[in-house]
Amino acid sequence: MTSTGDRVFDWIDARADERRRAGLTRQLRPRPADSTLLDLAGNDYLGLSKDKRVSGAAAAAALRWGAGSTGSRLVTGTTELHTELEHALATFCGAQAALVFSSGFAANLGVITALSGKGSAIVTDAYIHASLIDGCRLSRADIAVVGHSDPAAAKRALETRRTEHALLVTDSVFSVDGDLAPLREFAQACQEHNAGLVVDDAHGFGVLGEGGRGAVADAGLIKEPNVVTTMTLSKALGAQGGAVLGPRRVIKHLVETARSFIFDTGLAPASAAAALTALNVLKEEPERAERVRAVAMTFATQLKAAGCQVSKPDAAVIAVRAPSPEAAVTWADECRTAGVWVGCFRPPSVPDKVSRLRITVRADLTDAEVDRALDVITRCAPPGAS
Amino acid sequence: MTSTGDRVFDWIDARADERRRAGLTRQLRPRPADSTLLDLAGNDYLGLSKDKRVSGAAAAAALRWGAGSTGSRLVTGTTELHTELEHALATFCGAQAALVFSSGFAANLGVITALSGKGSAIVTDAYIHASLIDGCRLSRADIAVVGHSDPAAAKRALETRRTEHALLVTDSVFSVDGDLAPLREFAQACQEHNAGLVVDDAHGFGVLGEGGRGAVADAGLIKEPNVVTTMTLSKALGAQGGAVLGPRRVIKHLVETARSFIFDTGLAPASAAAALTALNVLKEEPERAERVRAVAMTFATQLKAAGCQVSKPDAAVIAVRAPSPEAAVTWADECRTAGVWVGCFRPPSVPDKVSRLRITVRADLTDAEVDRALDVITRCAPPGAS
Repeated sequence: MTSTGDRVFDWIDARADERRRAGLTRQLRPRPADSTLLDLAGNDYLGLSKDKRVSGAAAAAALRWGAGSTGSRLVTGTTELHTELEHALATFCGAQAALVFSSGFAANLGVITALSGKGSAIVTDAYIHASLIDGCRLSRADIAVVGHSDPAAAKRALETRRTEHALLVTDSVFSVDGDLAPLREFAQACQEHNAGLVVDDAHGFGVLGEGGRGAVADAGLIKEPNVVTTMTLSKALGAQGGAVLGPRRVIKHLVETARSFIFDTGLAPASAAAALTALNVLKEEPERAERVRAVAMTFATQLKAAGCQVSKPDAAVIAVRAPSPEAAVTWADECRTAGVWVGCFRPPSVPDKVSRLRITVRADLTDAEVDRALDVITRCAPPGAS
Repeated sequence: MTSTGDRVFDWIDARADERRRAGLTRQLRPRPADSTLLDLAGNDYLGLSKDKRVSGAAAAAALRWGAGSTGSRLVTGTTELHTELEHALATFCGAQAALVFSSGFAANLGVITALSGKGSAIVTDAYIHASLIDGCRLSRADIAVVGHSDPAAAKRALETRRTEHALLVTDSVFSVDGDLAPLREFAQACQEHNAGLVVDDAHGFGVLGEGGRGAVADAGLIKEPNVVTTMTLSKALGAQGGAVLGPRRVIKHLVETARSFIFDTGLAPASAAAALTALNVLKEEPERAERVRAVAMTFATQLKAAGCQVSKPDAAVIAVRAPSPEAAVTWADECRTAGVWVGCFRPPSVPDKVSRLRITVRADLTDAEVDRALDVITRCAPPGAS
């Protein structure tokens, strides 16, 4: 049998056709540095990514430390900046220790695979983030997916497991609808059934809790010996990277065994410095966390008043239901034409197959910007959206 | 049943004890910005991470674009910088298209999962990088691991597979011993058996091929319709991130389906700008690629002459066998005390359980630095190492 390699990837074209027919084509839209669009689509919740103190710290670190960390964290990729950031994150949130990864995705893969494995069990909320799902898939553990935000179901699954070791895995704030998980009830179930609790606080850190200390701290769980928190440095802190907070022995274990930590290049010094400086700004200006929550509530209230089907925003994410994937795309496109950039979530990025506008707010939005955005979004709403 | 969560992670301490007894404890060693150690442990092969043009570009980009990309590449995380970098990488190497990920690890996960799946087959070289292994584990494909650098075995495995779709997955330059894979023979096997070839060129790009175009370009395979190349921006280009090069339809498919692309924050603008500028420096100074290969050859020749068991350095990595994990640690520690930082690879980071010093060289090492390093490494060699 001989053939050329020309046909090997022909199946890709067939898949692309299927997506096109289903209205699920996606495209990159490069943005210029001086975009005049009002951004309600990014995750820069505290408005710190372009804060001069934060971007200035990134620039200074690149000049001082170089553009890259040059190696794995266990070889040359740990600078004193990384250690300082880890100490600052742990101290701010009240955890024993912290570890910085090159992304939140990598942090989630690392935590789940290092804390579970063949012969252990993982119980997960049905709506967890893709990176947590991939961590579970990689773990080789027995996986039980339970209904969304259903602590009783999680408790039953932990109770009936046939393994000694178990983890319960959840987001704190779910990325699609922005709703908060029942963290205390989840923790109670873990306590009762001798399981670890892994919480991804990507959308809670910087937004929820006293001064933005996050949802896990807010639930009083950050110091629990069986609780491990993951987060990103790329949302509220405006930089890049991820982190894990938890008991000291868990962090040491990750350093020695988490494959996505060991076999990855360390975070660039510029990103570590930016995250560290953003954390200091948040300490000095804790009102940013309150402001972003208040803005989210304004959006939800006003959109509901205009008749939209809006999620209850427990943090900075507001989801608005659209009647179809195509309607969601058109709605988002028309908002964009009118100068307002909102997110558009369609399958497979939504767990329930319902397409949505996804609006994310920032602490630095002015009242006038909020009014303008609300006007545009409601004006562009398709028939059936409200 | 009631309990506190205190005991949940007790098993971690037992594992730490096991590692301690086996001499396999690992520790982070934060480095200062002004370290005087001679660095032969990092992956900054062309010496560009601290090049003023590169770090200056990173700094300028942070100030202009902000510290972070603020979102997923499909939402707000694609800046014009990302697109420019993708175009420049593809053009430089001669590929149709390129896609930038937040790390090489993420690029490998994304490519393998998006190009395979349940009902397809993957054949892998036994010594592939951890990130490729994790991609295979995530893929749900039938996996066949064949002997290291054994194209006949790979061919047999492709031939006897029971699925239509198949990938052959390999590193170009293997990260532990620095040896080059038989890429042309692998490609031939893929051609004959209608399979895709995925090559991780992390340690070849910038070092091998004309002007550092990499091992895949050097083997004449970069334009093949069934070949996909992955690479890092954090080694020869001195920045952070990863990239995939390949046929346009493959790159489009990754944009729409690769979970580690879609569900991750885009690379920080500073890192994208640094990689782009480093690529331009490499274009203007192609002799950097030759220099790093020549330095590697000098190290290998001299260490062999001193009686060490040295790998043949096909790129910039030189492995020197140590009699035990403990001897490897002591050897590396004594080099470090004498001012020379070499890597130390022990299980589980080595596929054959043999501990090694891992020496990585740079284009910007002076002849005097090379002489000093060789003197230190041979002087510190433990009994049994030579």
